[in-house]
Amino acid sequence: MGIRVAVAGASGYAGGELLRILAGHPEFDLVAATAHTQAGARISAVHPQLAGLDLTLVETGPATLADADLVFLALPHGQSAALAAQLPDGVRVVDLGADHRLADADAWTRYYGGTHAGAWTYGLPELPGARAAIAGSTRVAATGCYAAAISLALAPLIAAGAVEPTDVVVVAASGTSGAGRAAKVNLLGSEVMGDLTPYKVGAHQHVPEIKQATGAASLSFTPVLAPMPRGILATVTARPTGAADPRDVLTATYADASFVHVLPEGAWPHTAATLGSNSCHLQATVDVDSGRVIVTSAIDNLGKGAAGQAVQCANLMFDLPETTGLSVFGVAP
Amino acid sequence: MGIRVAVAGASGYAGGELLRILAGHPEFDLVAATAHTQAGARISAVHPQLAGLDLTLVETGPATLADADLVFLALPHGQSAALAAQLPDGVRVVDLGADHRLADADAWTRYYGGTHAGAWTYGLPELPGARAAIAGSTRVAATGCYAAAISLALAPLIAAGAVEPTDVVVVAASGTSGAGRAAKVNLLGSEVMGDLTPYKVGAHQHVPEIKQATGAASLSFTPVLAPMPRGILATVTARPTGAADPRDVLTATYADASFVHVLPEGAWPHTAATLGSNSCHLQATVDVDSGRVIVTSAIDNLGKGAAGQAVQCANLMFDLPETTGLSVFGVAP
Amino acid sequence: MGIRVAVAGASGYAGGELLRILAGHPEFDLVAATAHTQAGARISAVHPQLAGLDLTLVETGPATLADADLVFLALPHGQSAALAAQLPDGVRVVDLGADHRLADADAWTRYYGGTHAGAWTYGLPELPGARAAIAGSTRVAATGCYAAAISLALAPLIAAGAVEPTDVVVVAASGTSGAGRAAKVNLLGSEVMGDLTPYKVGAHQHVPEIKQATGAASLSFTPVLAPMPRGILATVTARPTGAADPRDVLTATYADASFVHVLPEGAWPHTAATLGSNSCHLQATVDVDSGRVIVTSAIDNLGKGAAGQAVQCANLMFDLPETTGLSVFGVAP
Amino acid sequence: MGIRVAVAGASGYAGGELLRILAGHPEFDLVAATAHTQAGARISAVHPQLAGLDLTLVETGPATLADADLVFLALPHGQSAALAAQLPDGVRVVDLGADHRLADADAWTRYYGGTHAGAWTYGLPELPGARAAIAGSTRVAATGCYAAAISLALAPLIAAGAVEPTDVVVVAASGTSGAGRAAKVNLLGSEVMGDLTPYKVGAHQHVPEIKQATGAASLSFTPVLAPMPRGILATVTARPTGAADPRDVLTATYADASFVHVLPEGAWPHTAATLGSNSCHLQATVDVDSGRVIVTSAIDNLGKGAAGQAVQCANLMFDLPETTGLSVFGVAP
Repeated sequence: MGIRVAVAGASGYAGGELLRILAGHPEFDLVAATAHTQAGARISAVHPQLAGLDLTLVETGPATLADADLVFLALPHGQSAALAAQLPDGVRVVDLGADHRLADADAWTRYYGGTHAGAWTYGLPELPGARAAIAGSTRVAATGCYAAAISLALAPLIAAGAVEPTDVVVVAASGTSGAGRAAKVNLLGSEVMGDLTPYKVGAHQHVPEIKQATGAASLSFTPVLAPMPRGILATVTARPTGAADPRDVLTATYADASFVHVLPEGAWPHTAATLGSNSCHLQATVDVDSGRVIVTSAIDNLGKGAAGQAVQCANLMFDLPETTGLSVFGVAP
Repeated sequence: MGIRVAVAGASGYAGGELLRILAGHPEFDLVAATAHTQAGARISAVHPQLAGLDLTLVETGPATLADADLVFLALPHGQSAALAAQLPDGVRVVDLGADHRLADADAWTRYYGGTHAGAWTYGLPELPGARAAIAGSTRVAATGCYAAAISLALAPLIAAGAVEPTDVVVVAASGTSGAGRAAKVNLLGSEVMGDLTPYKVGAHQHVPEIKQATGAASLSFTPVLAPMPRGILATVTARPTGAADPRDVLTATYADASFVHVLPEGAWPHTAATLGSNSCHLQATVDVDSGRVIVTSAIDNLGKGAAGQAVQCANLMFDLPETTGLSVFGVAP
Repeated sequence: MGIRVAVAGASGYAGGELLRILAGHPEFDLVAATAHTQAGARISAVHPQLAGLDLTLVETGPATLADADLVFLALPHGQSAALAAQLPDGVRVVDLGADHRLADADAWTRYYGGTHAGAWTYGLPELPGARAAIAGSTRVAATGCYAAAISLALAPLIAAGAVEPTDVVVVAASGTSGAGRAAKVNLLGSEVMGDLTPYKVGAHQHVPEIKQATGAASLSFTPVLAPMPRGILATVTARPTGAADPRDVLTATYADASFVHVLPEGAWPHTAATLGSNSCHLQATVDVDSGRVIVTSAIDNLGKGAAGQAVQCANLMFDLPETTGLSVFGVAP
Repeated sequence: MGIRVAVAGASGYAGGELLRILAGHPEFDLVAATAHTQAGARISAVHPQLAGLDLTLVETGPATLADADLVFLALPHGQSAALAAQLPDGVRVVDLGADHRLADADAWTRYYGGTHAGAWTYGLPELPGARAAIAGSTRVAATGCYAAAISLALAPLIAAGAVEPTDVVVVAASGTSGAGRAAKVNLLGSEVMGDLTPYKVGAHQHVPEIKQATGAASLSFTPVLAPMPRGILATVTARPTGAADPRDVLTATYADASFVHVLPEGAWPHTAATLGSNSCHLQATVDVDSGRVIVTSAIDNLGKGAAGQAVQCANLMFDLPETTGLSVFGVAP
């Protein structure tokens, strides 16, 4: 018997992707998957792509989770803190929600409302020092989807002094699964196909998370909903300092990274190329005329932006190779 | 008999949209539609959406065009100048290509290559003074698709001194029809569906055109190819001067505009809402934290970004109401 | 002042398309648009594509509708009969719902449940004798979307004895707007993009309507949900009798039809070519090896399948040319 | 060192999917991937989803393939026979093309043209007796994509006498990758998004293959191009004999199948649920009114319809568990 794993909130999109990854993971054995309104349902009725997986959803709660060695929390923001507090200390927990991401309680309250539950180890392994911190933690807050795409592009440049941390401008577009599985008119296929629309302009809750993860001092962030199920393409621009070539910095930073690929010069990231994988594709250029570095970053929002990221963290927490059970390669076309 | 109209380059996407609009135009009578490799084809074989239109494509050239009162040139960049030079002076011409858009010959050569053919009246009617200039011209260079979406958002703000003309940052995503109808692997449905990818980063040929139309002094522009047939969503950010509220400036500028709508506060543009129309939807906000004005702009790249725009100009050139034959309302969902 | 028109149920997809068409109709003046939960909302908040239309939704009921000369009912099935009964006899009514389509009360109860409200004149103008019947009626039941696509393909063949009325097999795929605007998880963009799925197999409520409209004696009908906002492609197969060539029958039947186009041999219908139009594109072939006639039919489910159809009927009811305010040409690509 | 594997025709969609599967296969070691015009290119330049795979395409030919223990041929129809003839007898070969699928030389010539190269063992493992035949072969012709989806639905019903083999009617829609990666205008994203269109009606080259695989005596087959990159949904109807319940037959046939899932009653296949997997989802019902059995079948055309199928066959040929390196679960949403 391997490491016993449970997934709370398995009826959503991130939960479904976790189950798919775990079904192919050689060391993690899925022992429970929980939901609330869908408790009692066969998994294939909730996630048709998992037909053939013999599993019934059970009610979310400590009783169904505490017996596991590892628990993934894929719950709506604001619900994981209370549940996590009821789990035994010995259970390792990776929270895909936002409850424990921010160190700044004021920022948390401002963007999420309610009381801040305290910060956990931040789960973006490719940040400096993050692998060791994650490996030594029993509680890890996996990064948000936009934050993952943007931080992988930006954090090394600020850390290396290659760009100024002020006046960073980001526009990032996400596939619709990033907006969750709740039934809403504005997320209907009829509304989103053929459509691009911005939302939460200048007010997205990932702004403080990105600042925390990257050291950006000011950040203009415009999220856009794009007509595809998955994928995030982030365009990150900042002013170069001239201290180092941005592309060289990224190339050096990720030279040994399994999942982050700086593309050859002239090639630009495609979100479709990351579908179903835990990879991030990056490219950078300096636009001399406009005085801006432009870095573009592509991930699968449910992969590197959620479930893949979380499993990567869990691998580190259990001293497994971080690529265990994860795919570097996307499913395309 | 009304005004006799010919369309050169009718086999492409902009050409097809021109034919569709002209078929419903009460004053313009289509007398010729031309193409090169498709000359001789029935129009419905080339544009299935025009089944029922009794028309055969003829060879592009002065012989097939000079008899018209009005000629639309929807040819690849670099081909319209030579053809236009062969048309009688009395024929009014609207060029949907780039050949005559730029006043700066050096910029033209740098971005398009070859010899600059000289500038015509720039065909974006909503710019200050443009309606009168267009009405008084026999040669008009219709604006590029990205340039239309971005200039409508940005030009009034710079003109009013509401934003600084330096360090403008734009990310704009376009549907695939903006890339034309030539058969290319990277434009196959299998490649573009589910995919977002940047291209020509910092090097798009619309940069000098946007600067010219808006007065921007420096402009970082990242174009993105989006998985939809039509539509452009432009996110334009610039630093506010504090001299005027950007949204108020836009509202005042377009108070009497038939096709440009500043949406109510809290509503953001959807590209799908402009499909098939000549409308542009705008929204603006000031993000105090990041010190950026963010304006988003949505158009149909073949409508306000190409064929609709061109017909609007032609209406002005023939002293017709500018809305004649054009739709304000989009086809959605 | 022209003909005064009201739309009940204007917040749904068919209602929105009706408003779009009516906004460009030269004889019909929109005087009221009603909704229930959305009553009080500005139309552009409900239908962003109608930005620029100065209209506020009012509560659905006889009080807001009875003052019109013409009322379109775009309500959920089962709601129009009660409302229609409260409208003055002199008001002409076109019902886009199913309440009054079926002559067979038993069939109505079996497929829709509840009590049959009685049949009105069936609103598919291209059926034999239908134009005159519609023109002479004050109450017309517009045809269902699938029924329109399928009946236009099949009815002439059965009427001409070109195919057997038994063992007709139909598979038809529809864009998601055909499933309405209610927020449902299975209609989310994340679920429908990239997906084809059958539903209501052998049990769709349009089966009795199609039988009634076409004379089919037995009909196997499999509807499929397709990843696009609009469009129906119906594949209709039946056994040829040899009495007449099916394509010739269709060509002769629709020789003078404004909206129904039998494509040239070798060309097959594209749903995208009918987007936003009131057209139907048809093609037929006889597959000698399998002993089947195959007719394919493409429409816009909100155009010829709903709002366009309804306006066409209304035009006839007011002795206007049936094409008034309607487009023959689709918006493509 | 494991089993040495080469892929010929690695630049196409099936070739790319083969490389992705092989990269995660624990027993097959990729030693060569070949192409023609793309020879010399880095694999990530041709397949961006394979960024991180250290591989350069080499020229297709016996010299680059003969050293392998196993060769997959993913070449255009008509090209594999000549190449296969030049490979040593000891090399096991799985051909994803059509050259060796048909036993009937006349049918081959009629549908493909040219000279028939002879039949190999047919590579659909779930057909009766097929696993043993494949395991004992050194040359296997993997099944066509439509043929796979349709045969899995139909073959057991005809074999069990549950349906009549005459007058089978099939409509099946495929994602665009099924049409290959050649640059063609009708396959551009602008043309296919939002569009459904039939093609090769009654004349598709898979008709004789399906008849051969299923025992169908007459088959009406209408293929439809659908607006999604991957996936086939086949709707198969036939007349029931009454000898056995069709759904029971399918359930019994596939009780032990790893990749073919008969869904619970009331659930219908979704193509998206099979994305990236080697699974086939089936559902069947008897429509008493119309006298038709309706079976719907969903696969990933590049998975069970091409590359997954081929690897499954190869697993059998090397006496590995047939699921080795293949996924049962789809990537969704």
